[in-house]
Amino acid sequence: MSTPNTRLTIFLQQCRNRIDAELERQLSASGNGSDRLEQAMRYSVLGGGKRIRPALCLAAATAVGQSQDNAVIPACTLELIHAYSLIHDDLPAMDDDELRRGRATTHIAFDEATAILAGDALQTMAFGLLAEAPGLDGQVRLAMITELASASGHRGMVGGQAIDLESVGKSLIIDQLERMHRHKTGALIAASVRMGALTATKVSDDQLAALTLYSQTLGLAFQVQDDLLDIEGDTTVIGKPQGSDLARAKPTYPSLLGTAGARDYLSQLLHSSLSSLDGFGKEADILRDMAGYVVARTH
Amino acid sequence: MSTPNTRLTIFLQQCRNRIDAELERQLSASGNGSDRLEQAMRYSVLGGGKRIRPALCLAAATAVGQSQDNAVIPACTLELIHAYSLIHDDLPAMDDDELRRGRATTHIAFDEATAILAGDALQTMAFGLLAEAPGLDGQVRLAMITELASASGHRGMVGGQAIDLESVGKSLIIDQLERMHRHKTGALIAASVRMGALTATKVSDDQLAALTLYSQTLGLAFQVQDDLLDIEGDTTVIGKPQGSDLARAKPTYPSLLGTAGARDYLSQLLHSSLSSLDGFGKEADILRDMAGYVVARTH
Repeated sequence: MSTPNTRLTIFLQQCRNRIDAELERQLSASGNGSDRLEQAMRYSVLGGGKRIRPALCLAAATAVGQSQDNAVIPACTLELIHAYSLIHDDLPAMDDDELRRGRATTHIAFDEATAILAGDALQTMAFGLLAEAPGLDGQVRLAMITELASASGHRGMVGGQAIDLESVGKSLIIDQLERMHRHKTGALIAASVRMGALTATKVSDDQLAALTLYSQTLGLAFQVQDDLLDIEGDTTVIGKPQGSDLARAKPTYPSLLGTAGARDYLSQLLHSSLSSLDGFGKEADILRDMAGYVVARTH
Repeated sequence: MSTPNTRLTIFLQQCRNRIDAELERQLSASGNGSDRLEQAMRYSVLGGGKRIRPALCLAAATAVGQSQDNAVIPACTLELIHAYSLIHDDLPAMDDDELRRGRATTHIAFDEATAILAGDALQTMAFGLLAEAPGLDGQVRLAMITELASASGHRGMVGGQAIDLESVGKSLIIDQLERMHRHKTGALIAASVRMGALTATKVSDDQLAALTLYSQTLGLAFQVQDDLLDIEGDTTVIGKPQGSDLARAKPTYPSLLGTAGARDYLSQLLHSSLSSLDGFGKEADILRDMAGYVVARTH
């Protein structure tokens, strides 16, 4: 029997291979638009990344007793939305980052206009793929589109990014920081789990509520760990300049709670994230492993 | 009996009122995100505009014998996509325009980061609204999402914008100019008509093909007239600096065909656009009026 750690490593590797192969297939040259734009899209999506959102989506499908097959396209659309948000966040008018995953950001590798358009087109592609996702009932596909739009729009991820921009240089209290992160990263992480669960046409309200709680708590844990990595991590490992939040006077969990306080909070979040899965059996083990992975990751 | 001209004027006014009221309702403050972002979204969408795409969508619903009621949300989503594309096209990294519809562009009235995010969120909203559009079968909503994504993504509108950016300062032959416009503006205009037609669950392939031909020809006519207005129009009427294409050495129909040649081409397009509606009776009269309107408009 494999240990939790090797079990997760194998799962994550398989997931990455599967998602990357599908994204590669979907992003193959159409010969019917701008070559440069399509290159920028491929560059942004296929440039590595941990594929945490797709992994959560596939793991959630398993947790509700479904095959992961029908979750592959939904998982890809989460990655497309994530990739588009990174391209736009990195733009000079936003975070002005030149390095991402150890490579030049899209507007540096191409140009600003192409980066804006590549982000736009990746978002469109996500909804287009979801509308035609194979193996899923029409009503399931519609529910997933509603879920993805709600999580990524102005009341979700994009709203969070706007709140983030407004808060640079301001002192936030912890509730405001939490509100920002619930929108900015939490909503899409929750959607990842919920879309995986929605592959089961008859997922119970209780199950969905438990998985939602798991994913929301996990989303916050993800952010706390991200903040800790920013002050403790190594630039070559995290793939972006270490200390960049600090340099921009961005409010973070360590800056509000202290490093030790942020670590304590992370433990609490991990504990409550795992507790919300108590009603599930072994089928939720990968989700449990994922929670441990998110808080222990080094990049 | 009203003349074609007053009939169209009344229709366009009713359409504008209806679409604006629905957009206003959908964009009312949620209190659950960034106020500034939501203000920028409202500013961009509710700042006037002719609502040509929504009008085509409603008129196409009438042409296939359907009530316009079920076409209102699809029509709004076309306007949301159009509005998002204008915000992003106006950005400094793209066309760098400060004036649109006689008002400051979104990045001037707010700031660049907010403008990028407002565009992003308007796109998301379009797909979210379509997934829950009332009065339409699930399969119809999915077909419309596929249509909208295909028309607006990298193989449609965004692809056309990328081709446009690549062609500034280059000399294009007419086929290349046409390819760019078929993507950049044509695809969304065609989708406007097709989405209206899709409100009829049993629209025949022949009807859809005829309406597609109508809309594709109309889309080109729209662009030829746009180019003519740029050299002949008045800044205060067209709402943007006259001669701006020329100043940027953008290839246009008049620059390739001469003004008289472009006018001739416009007449041909109007003629063939109307011919494609020959199989329809009076129910397509508004579409016929719209074709005349597009080529005769002064802004």
